[in-house]
Amino acid sequence: MIDKPNGLTSPKAQNIANEVRRRIVERVWRQGDRIPDEADLAIEFDAARATVNKALQLLADEGLLDRRRRAGTRVAVDPVRKATFTISIVREQVEQAGKAYSYRVVAQRPSPVPADIAERLGLQKGEVLIHMRAIHYGDGQPFQLEDRWINPRATPGLENADFRQLNANEWLVRNAPYLRAELAFSAENANRRDARLLQTRPGQALLILHRTTWNNLGPITTVRVAYQPGHFVGTENSQART
Amino acid sequence: MIDKPNGLTSPKAQNIANEVRRRIVERVWRQGDRIPDEADLAIEFDAARATVNKALQLLADEGLLDRRRRAGTRVAVDPVRKATFTISIVREQVEQAGKAYSYRVVAQRPSPVPADIAERLGLQKGEVLIHMRAIHYGDGQPFQLEDRWINPRATPGLENADFRQLNANEWLVRNAPYLRAELAFSAENANRRDARLLQTRPGQALLILHRTTWNNLGPITTVRVAYQPGHFVGTENSQART
Repeated sequence: MIDKPNGLTSPKAQNIANEVRRRIVERVWRQGDRIPDEADLAIEFDAARATVNKALQLLADEGLLDRRRRAGTRVAVDPVRKATFTISIVREQVEQAGKAYSYRVVAQRPSPVPADIAERLGLQKGEVLIHMRAIHYGDGQPFQLEDRWINPRATPGLENADFRQLNANEWLVRNAPYLRAELAFSAENANRRDARLLQTRPGQALLILHRTTWNNLGPITTVRVAYQPGHFVGTENSQART
Repeated sequence: MIDKPNGLTSPKAQNIANEVRRRIVERVWRQGDRIPDEADLAIEFDAARATVNKALQLLADEGLLDRRRRAGTRVAVDPVRKATFTISIVREQVEQAGKAYSYRVVAQRPSPVPADIAERLGLQKGEVLIHMRAIHYGDGQPFQLEDRWINPRATPGLENADFRQLNANEWLVRNAPYLRAELAFSAENANRRDARLLQTRPGQALLILHRTTWNNLGPITTVRVAYQPGHFVGTENSQART
């Protein structure tokens, strides 16, 4: 049996965090100000010092407070603003939109890796990886297009995977957990192939997601995802600065 | 004087987390498997149970483990994959790229808010907000274009702000801390105005960032940022599933 994880924050600590957050937002405590010591806040809030500590750490994690061992805790001057995006499995995204999911592999073959992809992966140009292109559909309409390179040397079991049965995205999620990922968004005008596969016109602006993952054996996969025209990728209900 | 915040993880807990992570990645422990109890892991790693708890919580935060109070801890089957983007102050982004920053306000005036913006902000159509358009430059080249609506009722002091001196982005970061933000990326073909201001051609694919923030007084601001053609917004050195 497992205890309540330490990471969860008690209602009391949440209440203290809310009050401190209110003081920062209403500028009772201003950017750069040193806030009262933990011991004083513990008295004010009639709470254990550990509870105050937890509340302040929550606000530090949000970027609202700067905590320094000797210098005390100050209201952050240039708050780092972080946005967290959840990268879902595409089938689930389609199904959550209430659509029937389908999937088609357009091409899948071992290919020598071109220079730009090799550089991104930290591999030698010309090394042979699995190159695949596939389309994900919702209710038969193209939802996204993926152009993916998979490194068989970081994905034991790949030789037995049938991506016509289970798409590469899900196979990789289930069989090749990653330790590190790099993601980036950009925009591109659809080339002829993008346009044909996404059933749009060449030149249409497309949101592109680039994702590369690594495990302890090396780079696992890099993928260029082109979304259907007009698609938004957004945060949901993100809290202050998280 | 402030203690070491609780949120920091000891080297010992980090080492345990690394070993558990290795077992998951190398599929010694497979997705869906229940892992040994904390007490057993504490014996195996010759560590306090609280240290093991902290290590497992770290991995749960990363999405690698599912912790349930009664059902024990299992290797996550459908790990939620989160990507955290840091939204920097644009001047700092330009300066970090080694370029000289400059800024120009193209238009700034009180305007009745159109229906789509009003809906996004939860305000009545026609309510008067400050509407501004501005361009941020690096070495004199357009870096990004912003089209922004600011709600004076959520930004006390706005009437004294001079956005020709300090740009709205920085004024808002310093003077109107937010409690909630929504961000989304999309792609658009440049319209004539985008193209003129960004010195590109109409139709050029542009990466667009939409950001809306709220505090306890209401919506603060909503902004559409159009980046220069070819711009990438990416994560840096993101760790496993965080």
